[in-house]
Amino acid sequence: MDATADQRYVITLSCPDTTGIVARIAGFLADAGGWITEAGYHSDPDTGWFFTRQVVRADSLPYGVDELRDRFAQVAAELGGQTDWTVTDTAVPKRAVLLVTKEPHCLHDLLGRVAAGELPVQLDAVIGNHDELGDIVRAHGVPFHHVEFPPPGNVRYAVEKEKAFDELSGLVEGYDPDAIVLARFMQILPAQVCRAWAGRALNIHHSFLPSFVGARPYHQAYARGVKLIGATCHYVTPDLDAGPIIEQDVIRVDHSDTASDMVRRGRDIERLVLARGLRWHLEDRVLVHGNKTVVFR
Amino acid sequence: MDATADQRYVITLSCPDTTGIVARIAGFLADAGGWITEAGYHSDPDTGWFFTRQVVRADSLPYGVDELRDRFAQVAAELGGQTDWTVTDTAVPKRAVLLVTKEPHCLHDLLGRVAAGELPVQLDAVIGNHDELGDIVRAHGVPFHHVEFPPPGNVRYAVEKEKAFDELSGLVEGYDPDAIVLARFMQILPAQVCRAWAGRALNIHHSFLPSFVGARPYHQAYARGVKLIGATCHYVTPDLDAGPIIEQDVIRVDHSDTASDMVRRGRDIERLVLARGLRWHLEDRVLVHGNKTVVFR
Amino acid sequence: MDATADQRYVITLSCPDTTGIVARIAGFLADAGGWITEAGYHSDPDTGWFFTRQVVRADSLPYGVDELRDRFAQVAAELGGQTDWTVTDTAVPKRAVLLVTKEPHCLHDLLGRVAAGELPVQLDAVIGNHDELGDIVRAHGVPFHHVEFPPPGNVRYAVEKEKAFDELSGLVEGYDPDAIVLARFMQILPAQVCRAWAGRALNIHHSFLPSFVGARPYHQAYARGVKLIGATCHYVTPDLDAGPIIEQDVIRVDHSDTASDMVRRGRDIERLVLARGLRWHLEDRVLVHGNKTVVFR
Amino acid sequence: MDATADQRYVITLSCPDTTGIVARIAGFLADAGGWITEAGYHSDPDTGWFFTRQVVRADSLPYGVDELRDRFAQVAAELGGQTDWTVTDTAVPKRAVLLVTKEPHCLHDLLGRVAAGELPVQLDAVIGNHDELGDIVRAHGVPFHHVEFPPPGNVRYAVEKEKAFDELSGLVEGYDPDAIVLARFMQILPAQVCRAWAGRALNIHHSFLPSFVGARPYHQAYARGVKLIGATCHYVTPDLDAGPIIEQDVIRVDHSDTASDMVRRGRDIERLVLARGLRWHLEDRVLVHGNKTVVFR
Repeated sequence: MDATADQRYVITLSCPDTTGIVARIAGFLADAGGWITEAGYHSDPDTGWFFTRQVVRADSLPYGVDELRDRFAQVAAELGGQTDWTVTDTAVPKRAVLLVTKEPHCLHDLLGRVAAGELPVQLDAVIGNHDELGDIVRAHGVPFHHVEFPPPGNVRYAVEKEKAFDELSGLVEGYDPDAIVLARFMQILPAQVCRAWAGRALNIHHSFLPSFVGARPYHQAYARGVKLIGATCHYVTPDLDAGPIIEQDVIRVDHSDTASDMVRRGRDIERLVLARGLRWHLEDRVLVHGNKTVVFR
Repeated sequence: MDATADQRYVITLSCPDTTGIVARIAGFLADAGGWITEAGYHSDPDTGWFFTRQVVRADSLPYGVDELRDRFAQVAAELGGQTDWTVTDTAVPKRAVLLVTKEPHCLHDLLGRVAAGELPVQLDAVIGNHDELGDIVRAHGVPFHHVEFPPPGNVRYAVEKEKAFDELSGLVEGYDPDAIVLARFMQILPAQVCRAWAGRALNIHHSFLPSFVGARPYHQAYARGVKLIGATCHYVTPDLDAGPIIEQDVIRVDHSDTASDMVRRGRDIERLVLARGLRWHLEDRVLVHGNKTVVFR
Repeated sequence: MDATADQRYVITLSCPDTTGIVARIAGFLADAGGWITEAGYHSDPDTGWFFTRQVVRADSLPYGVDELRDRFAQVAAELGGQTDWTVTDTAVPKRAVLLVTKEPHCLHDLLGRVAAGELPVQLDAVIGNHDELGDIVRAHGVPFHHVEFPPPGNVRYAVEKEKAFDELSGLVEGYDPDAIVLARFMQILPAQVCRAWAGRALNIHHSFLPSFVGARPYHQAYARGVKLIGATCHYVTPDLDAGPIIEQDVIRVDHSDTASDMVRRGRDIERLVLARGLRWHLEDRVLVHGNKTVVFR
Repeated sequence: MDATADQRYVITLSCPDTTGIVARIAGFLADAGGWITEAGYHSDPDTGWFFTRQVVRADSLPYGVDELRDRFAQVAAELGGQTDWTVTDTAVPKRAVLLVTKEPHCLHDLLGRVAAGELPVQLDAVIGNHDELGDIVRAHGVPFHHVEFPPPGNVRYAVEKEKAFDELSGLVEGYDPDAIVLARFMQILPAQVCRAWAGRALNIHHSFLPSFVGARPYHQAYARGVKLIGATCHYVTPDLDAGPIIEQDVIRVDHSDTASDMVRRGRDIERLVLARGLRWHLEDRVLVHGNKTVVFR
């Protein structure tokens, strides 16, 4: 299949910083006739690390994505053993699985965006630990799976929960998704699941982290009397609410907003922040280093 | 039926400003034992006009909304012949009809908000001049009507369009809605329709008005090289894009955003601004005076 | 002296909520012919407390501020022993004292605003624990006092610091100011000073509290990889950085911002947030209740 | 003099886009051992133009800025006759002249920023067509020149104004500044002055252009009932308020804001937007192409 005019190859790379990296990559692409349409660079003075994201017109290269990957692997290898890199093809849609509970707003928002063609993603499935949201998911033509989780007071809670997570993990892995989106999925993931999904699982936390870690952040915000409330999209790690932050935003509140007003109004920020974070993840704009992200917007 | 603890009566009033209006209204409510939970006042120095919105617990009054309306009519009458007022009951949901074309994002957003119970509204119908969006509307259990509009080049364009608008108006009036939401309905309403729907029809314009009136505002914004793009929710009047503004917001763009990036990114603002404007309209927070609004948030 | 057309009396009141408070106050003002130009009300459902701020044209009342105060005292008394109220006269400028160290940006900003007539304040003095900023203060025609504080390593640190705070307190009390502004004054106030200045001392904290309490908040923010940084204007209380919040705001940062970029860029927010908080305080727009504020903007 | 660790050379370049430009420039720098600390690229699909800004550690190159300029001239020449480029040295401070009338807020803000070392600039002079602001300028140790302009009703208005502009131009040119900042200078520059200062003269317009072009924009905004007001920093061109936009921002207003409230509140945005635009200009972050800017932040 010939490349279309819109098709792009997206290259990301991070490695210890040194002189000549840009020249090496740019030279490699120029030699192949590569037409760069976007290029981002970041040199981190603290960690001494270098990051780049380059977007190349597929039809400007004499070969396809597999050969680009093979050839680029050699460039990356020359840059040392700590080099981390990816080459992706915008003609191959990224695939996502959403995890939900009962809170519908992020789900509705993402379904709407997918239906409107706003997000470069193939939505493979939605998995819920409740089944309330199944109907709307199916109405959008997306498979919905219900994985039952034990209620908190259950005597066999720990065992049942482990079983539920096994089932959930199995389902997710069956899709092998590029993005696992916790769209207000109110369960804390076990550490081994966090590790298995590292760099692929995005959560939306309903506060401006690191303020109000943990449960009921809007109620915490209300009690403290803050004048802005926010939301945070971050990668999931075994440390609760402490993963690398992808995106955050806030809105203004005042004394007339009750805790439930904050819950309602915060949804607007949760929707937006999750949608933006997910888009950037899908477009390979987010490079993680330690507990921080470089986001090439 | 007895009033519930959450039920409220919402009073709005505007009239020429004079001393003692607040005392008159507050005294009237106090005499009846009315418990005010929200009160907004605005005294406009330029026009010499006074505006208020008061929210009273229904269960604090010894009578229902009809008697409140009768009694309040006398208070209003004392304030002169130019007084404009409303009394509504939150136990009676406001009803809305949406008008759409093919652009799905505002529709999906509003359907999601209604499904999530975020908006105090009963969505009676969606009417489209195309039928693309019918399926998702019906999946939400909302009636969808398709009113065919003539294509621009049609020889009998004027006649056919008038007929289409007659059909549309008839359908809308059949629902007698409190809000008629042009959720990216890309047709210019005839003046007599604007007049018939005055104060009930809300439009979302995809620019920060008064910048970029008319067609393709994002392309105009791109050509001018602005650093922020916006959206405007306003009441529809016979003057195109010139009605009273309810709400506006913007997002930052830069040189890397193409006109189509602006179209896509602007949708986030359109969704939010329309949803906020609609909520305030439904909650009787918006008082119109001349070509401006007082919004008691 | 007769009241000018611009002169206003500003009434604030808070008390346990009950039916008829608005009517009582509005009736009192209406009986005297009072022309209300601004009125804010807030009824707090959690604490059951009521708050109001009313602005009356001085020339609409048949008496001056002293008699208004006497008469209003009776209204307030009827509302119970927990009632808290103030009556101020915009013709009597509020007076402020600023406390500074070496960081010049908030000082320059406030001096510029005072010089431009933007803030309704008489700036009585600036007191610094260093003398670097004395020249610019004097160039603005404002007295500057230098109170030497002991360096951290000093053997008699505790004693010397107490002496320094005694001198500082004495100076401040000599001016009896309505506002004591810690314009990046980098000393922690002793508890008894906090108590003496309660409700009058405003601090600007260089983070979006409650994130990053304590020292070097921008460096904490950098280390956490947040995508927004902020500032908080709050009343000073004995609990460090935990007083009632008056105003907050944020700006966007990204991976390319170093900790020193954040320090520099954060200054824009510190300036704005402090100037807004101070203006609202001076205009009697801020009512404190427990550890929260009601801000009638 | 040896390069210090903080010294940087800043390269900007724009030219018709083609394959290999990045490689050519990166290769040139890599060959000389150049350590790139910041790099921005933009490829404009509409105009087919390429833009870059690169920052190199001075101490990583074996030669100084003059030789870098000579050598880079050859690289630029290879990229064709339409190539536009600059090489600057952060060790040589940019120089600015400010033009003012009586409005003090932008002047105070910029003087404060310069005093605080926040802006990488040497402020050579301030020129006013009134002398009210002379004292504060001189208190900052900056020369102030008063150029008298004729009052609008003057019979010899045109002749006198031309004379005044001749004197003003002469003064400005005597300083040969990198930036000529119209800090609320309320005179319309003659076309030949605009042309002489092209790319160096920055204006702050007190509206969110292209809304409210011309006089009294806040009053226009008030009359239209907009919900946000803004400010725009742009390069001055002979077309009034129509030059390339560098930066814009807005703040929220509502019905309670009078036109004078908007004037006052707008100053906060004017200050910020002008300070940001000026900083980016001084740091060679702004590349102009046609009537638009590329801003590498």
